[in-house]
Amino acid sequence: MISPTATLLISCPDRQGLVAKIANFIYSNGGNIVHADQHTDFAQGLFLSRIEWQLEGFNLPRDIIAPAFEAIAAPLNAQWELHFSDEIPRIALWVTKQDHCLLDLIWRQHAQELPAEIPLILSNHENLRGIAEQFGIDYHHVPISKATKAEAEARQLELLQEYKIDLVVLAKYMQILSPEFIDRFPKIINIHHSFLPAFPGANPYHRAFDRGVKIIGATAHYATVDLDEGPIIEQDVVRVSHRDTVEDLIRKGKDLERVVLARAVRLHLQHRVLVYGNRTVVFS
Amino acid sequence: MISPTATLLISCPDRQGLVAKIANFIYSNGGNIVHADQHTDFAQGLFLSRIEWQLEGFNLPRDIIAPAFEAIAAPLNAQWELHFSDEIPRIALWVTKQDHCLLDLIWRQHAQELPAEIPLILSNHENLRGIAEQFGIDYHHVPISKATKAEAEARQLELLQEYKIDLVVLAKYMQILSPEFIDRFPKIINIHHSFLPAFPGANPYHRAFDRGVKIIGATAHYATVDLDEGPIIEQDVVRVSHRDTVEDLIRKGKDLERVVLARAVRLHLQHRVLVYGNRTVVFS
Amino acid sequence: MISPTATLLISCPDRQGLVAKIANFIYSNGGNIVHADQHTDFAQGLFLSRIEWQLEGFNLPRDIIAPAFEAIAAPLNAQWELHFSDEIPRIALWVTKQDHCLLDLIWRQHAQELPAEIPLILSNHENLRGIAEQFGIDYHHVPISKATKAEAEARQLELLQEYKIDLVVLAKYMQILSPEFIDRFPKIINIHHSFLPAFPGANPYHRAFDRGVKIIGATAHYATVDLDEGPIIEQDVVRVSHRDTVEDLIRKGKDLERVVLARAVRLHLQHRVLVYGNRTVVFS
Amino acid sequence: MISPTATLLISCPDRQGLVAKIANFIYSNGGNIVHADQHTDFAQGLFLSRIEWQLEGFNLPRDIIAPAFEAIAAPLNAQWELHFSDEIPRIALWVTKQDHCLLDLIWRQHAQELPAEIPLILSNHENLRGIAEQFGIDYHHVPISKATKAEAEARQLELLQEYKIDLVVLAKYMQILSPEFIDRFPKIINIHHSFLPAFPGANPYHRAFDRGVKIIGATAHYATVDLDEGPIIEQDVVRVSHRDTVEDLIRKGKDLERVVLARAVRLHLQHRVLVYGNRTVVFS
Repeated sequence: MISPTATLLISCPDRQGLVAKIANFIYSNGGNIVHADQHTDFAQGLFLSRIEWQLEGFNLPRDIIAPAFEAIAAPLNAQWELHFSDEIPRIALWVTKQDHCLLDLIWRQHAQELPAEIPLILSNHENLRGIAEQFGIDYHHVPISKATKAEAEARQLELLQEYKIDLVVLAKYMQILSPEFIDRFPKIINIHHSFLPAFPGANPYHRAFDRGVKIIGATAHYATVDLDEGPIIEQDVVRVSHRDTVEDLIRKGKDLERVVLARAVRLHLQHRVLVYGNRTVVFS
Repeated sequence: MISPTATLLISCPDRQGLVAKIANFIYSNGGNIVHADQHTDFAQGLFLSRIEWQLEGFNLPRDIIAPAFEAIAAPLNAQWELHFSDEIPRIALWVTKQDHCLLDLIWRQHAQELPAEIPLILSNHENLRGIAEQFGIDYHHVPISKATKAEAEARQLELLQEYKIDLVVLAKYMQILSPEFIDRFPKIINIHHSFLPAFPGANPYHRAFDRGVKIIGATAHYATVDLDEGPIIEQDVVRVSHRDTVEDLIRKGKDLERVVLARAVRLHLQHRVLVYGNRTVVFS
Repeated sequence: MISPTATLLISCPDRQGLVAKIANFIYSNGGNIVHADQHTDFAQGLFLSRIEWQLEGFNLPRDIIAPAFEAIAAPLNAQWELHFSDEIPRIALWVTKQDHCLLDLIWRQHAQELPAEIPLILSNHENLRGIAEQFGIDYHHVPISKATKAEAEARQLELLQEYKIDLVVLAKYMQILSPEFIDRFPKIINIHHSFLPAFPGANPYHRAFDRGVKIIGATAHYATVDLDEGPIIEQDVVRVSHRDTVEDLIRKGKDLERVVLARAVRLHLQHRVLVYGNRTVVFS
Repeated sequence: MISPTATLLISCPDRQGLVAKIANFIYSNGGNIVHADQHTDFAQGLFLSRIEWQLEGFNLPRDIIAPAFEAIAAPLNAQWELHFSDEIPRIALWVTKQDHCLLDLIWRQHAQELPAEIPLILSNHENLRGIAEQFGIDYHHVPISKATKAEAEARQLELLQEYKIDLVVLAKYMQILSPEFIDRFPKIINIHHSFLPAFPGANPYHRAFDRGVKIIGATAHYATVDLDEGPIIEQDVVRVSHRDTVEDLIRKGKDLERVVLARAVRLHLQHRVLVYGNRTVVFS
C-alpha cells in the first residue's frame, strides 16, 4: 500500500523549534511524512518523537540520510535511530519447554503480522525441536547449568552473530541472562506474568490463587540487568474467579502471554517503541 | 503546571511539507510546541493534526494568531480551529429524568476534571430541579410535545444564546432534536447504549437480555441529523451474565454511560477530537 | 486430579424442592457432588441447573443412571442431558481459507486445553490441507456451489456420521448452512465479528472503519436457522483507534475470534452451557 | 419483584450429601430456593455454598430458622451466616479529604443500587462536612494523631455502636486501623490502588508513572490486620499510556476506585461474598 518508508526515533532535551527542524530536514529533501507523533516529558525536560516518511521521491540516498541527520542531531544532544521499512529484522526465539508463545509468534510471522524473519530457535532443552523442524527453522540446543553458564552464553552470542540476529525474543525462556550478556546484546524482549498485587518469587500462580485474586496479567518488556524490571512495552489482564483452579490461572496466563508478547514484538518491529530511562513511549 | 497554550486542530488534503509549514509558523513566532500529533488517512488523502504550544513567549498577540495562520491555511484548503486553554467553554447539560450522567458531570467539573463552566441545566421535566439548586446551577424547564416542538426548540436556542453556551451535553435527554436545531447549534455530545449485536428500537435492554448477550456497551458521539449515527468519540463495554436481570443490565449500563460520556466531554474540552466525514480522530 | 465425573444439565418449570430432589438422587446413590450451580429465570418461571458428581463410589452403573433419573425428571417436565467426563467428544473443524481459528483450536487440543478429539477437518476449499497433514488430521474437501449445495450437505452429513462427530465448530467456514442441515445436525458452534453499533451485511470491517468505531468484538454462538442469531456462548472486545487501518481491524478481529471461539468450545465441552429459548446459561 | 428472602452462606469440610441436607432443610419447611450456588475447594477439602429462598410460604418463623439450622450445621463443623433481605444493613462511610468514593456511594444508595442505609459519615478531617449536610447524613469529626489514636478509636467504636452500624466502608480513609480495632469490629471494606507490578510504599502513582506502566488497577478487600492484604472482593483495571501524566493516573485511578468499591459493597450487601482463609468466594 505504502512504498518503503524511513522511520526516525529521536529523543533530546526539549527546546523550541525541534518539530520544525526535523520536519524541515525531511521536507527540504523532498520527503512526504506519513506519520509524526511527538511527546514531551516535562518532568525530565525531554522531547521524544517518531517520524516516518516515504522514501520514494526523497532526494537523499539511504546511506547519506544518517550522516546528514547527524549534523542536525549532534548540536541538540539527541539520541536517535533510523530504520527502513524494507530492511527486515531477524529474530531469534529463545524457549525452554513451553510452546505457546513460540507457536504463536511463528504463526503470526507466517500470517505476515510480524515484519521479520525467524531464522533461529534457541533452547536449553531438546523438547521443542519438532516444532522448529515442522516450520523449517534452525534449532540450536544450548544446555545450560551453573557451571557452564559463561560458556553457554558465549555460544549463544556466537549463534546470534552467525545468524545476524537483530532481536532476541524470550518466548518463555526460563533462564536468567547474565548482566554481561545483556550488555553485549541489549535488544531483548521478555514476557512474564503480572499480578495485582505482585507475587515475586516462586510459584506466583499458586500464591495468586491462594490470595484469591480476581485479575491476572502479563507484561512484555525489554530485558535489563534487573531481569523483570526493564522498560514495559505492553501489558494486559484477564478476569479470574474462585471457579478457576491454579491450572486455569496458568492456562489463562498463557493466553495472555502470547497475545501481549506478540503485540510487544510487533510494536518493536514497527519502530514504535522509544526507550528512555526505565520507561517507554509507545507511539501507537 | 503549564502556562496557557494554544491548540490548533487542522485537516487538509495531504501534501508534502505540511508538518514543516505548521511547525515553522509556530517556531518562527517564538512558540514552544508541547504536543504535536499527526495522522494521515490515506484512503481519503487527508492530513489531520493537533498541535499545542505555549503562549508564553509567543510573539503574536492572540487576536492576530488566527488571521496570520489563515494566510498559511487558505492555500492548503485547510479546515481548522484555534483554541486557547484559558478560555473556559460553557456547557449546558440537557436532561430528562435520569440523574446519573448529570451528577457525574457536575461532580467532575467540581473536581476540576472538566475544564469548563456549567451555568445551565435544561430539561423537559421538573424532576431534577433539586439537583440544580443544590449545586447553584440555573435550571430551565422547557416542556416539549409534538405540537410545541418548534416553539420549544426556539426557546432552547434562546437560552443557549443567553447563557453563551459553547457545548450542549445530552446527559440522558430523551427527546429527538430536529435537523433544524442541530443545524443551528451543531456542538452537541450525546450518549447512548450499545450492544453486540445491535438492538435498534424500543426496549433495547430487554431485548439484549432476551438474547442473552454477554457484553453491553455505551457510545458517546456528536449528535447529527441521524441522531445516533454521528461521529463516535468514545465507547466502552462491561461484561454481563445470565445472573444479571434486566434491571442489572440497566444499572451496569448507567455506570458505563456516565464514564463514557465524561471521557468524551473531557476529550472534546481538551480539543483532542477532530471530526471529518462521519468519523473522528481522537488525539489522546 | 478428580476421578471421572457425571454432569447433569437440566431445565424445567420452577417449583419447590427441585434442588432437594436432584441432590437426594445423587446422595442416596452414594455420589459426591463437586459442582452444583442453579439459576432461576423468574420471567419464564424456569429452573436451570448444572450438577457434577464423582462416579467413584456412585452406586448406579453408568447405563442405569439415565433411566433412573428419567423417573424423577419425567414428572417435572424436565429437559436434561447427562455427560461423563471420560467420554471424549469428537469435533469436526469446518474451515474455508483462513487458518487462525483452525490452528488455535488444534494447538489447544494438543495442549490439553480442550477435552476432545479432532479427527476431521472439512473445507469447501483445498487451501488448508497442508495444516491437516502437518497434524495428522483427515481433511475432506467438499466443494460447494448453489447448484451442488444439497448434494454437498448430504456428503457433509455422511462424513459427520462416518467420523462419529459430536460437535461441529465453524472455524471461519464462510458458507451458510441450510435449515435442513441444522435440523439434522444441531450441535454447531459458530464465530463471527460483532460491532457497536452493528454493521450487518457485506464488508463489516470496512464499514466499522468508516464509522470510526473505538471498539470491535467477536461473538461465539450456536448456529441456528437464523445463522448469526443463535444463542450466544461468549463475547469479547478489543479497543481500536484512528491509527488502525482496515487491515489492523481485521488482524485484531482475528485475535479476538480465535480466543472467543476457543473459550466457547471449551465451555461447551465442559458441559457448562445450557440453552433455553434463544439464550444460554453459562455455568462458569 | 421477589418477596423477602433468606440467604444462607455456609462453609464446612467437604463430605457427601451436603447439598441434599441443606436443600432438604429448606424444602421440608416449605421454602422455594431462588438461588443456589456451590463451590468446592479441593485443595482444602472445603465445601462452600450460598442458598437463597423465599420466606413467603416458609413454615419456620424467622427467629426459629437459625436455631433449627444449627442442629444440622453443628455436626458438620460448619461456619454459617443467615441474612434476611428486608433487614437493611447500616453503613458508616469513613473518609479523609477525597470525596469521589463518598459521593459515589451516596449517589448509588439514593439510586437504590445499594440495599443499605447510610446514617453516619466519619472523618479525621472537617473537609467533607458540607457533603454530609447536603445529603442529611450525620458527620462526625474524630481527629487522630499518634498520641490520640487509642482514644480516637475508642470514640469511633462508640459511634459505630451508637449508630448500630453493620459495615464500615473505608471510602478513602487514609489512616491505618489498629489490630485491636479490627478485632473488635471486623466488617470493614477498604479500597486501594493496584499496579502491575506492585509499588508498595509511598507515592505509588508517581512510581508507576516512572516505570511507564500501561495498566493501573484498584482492589476492594476486607480490612485485616495486614491492612492491604485482606481477602479480595473485586478488582478492575484501566489502560494508561505515556500521554498520561501522574495527575491523569490519579484521576483514572479515582474513577476505578469508586466503581470497584461500589461493586464490592454491593456484593457484600447482597451476601454474595464468603470469606475463608485469606480469600473469598464471590457467588455472582
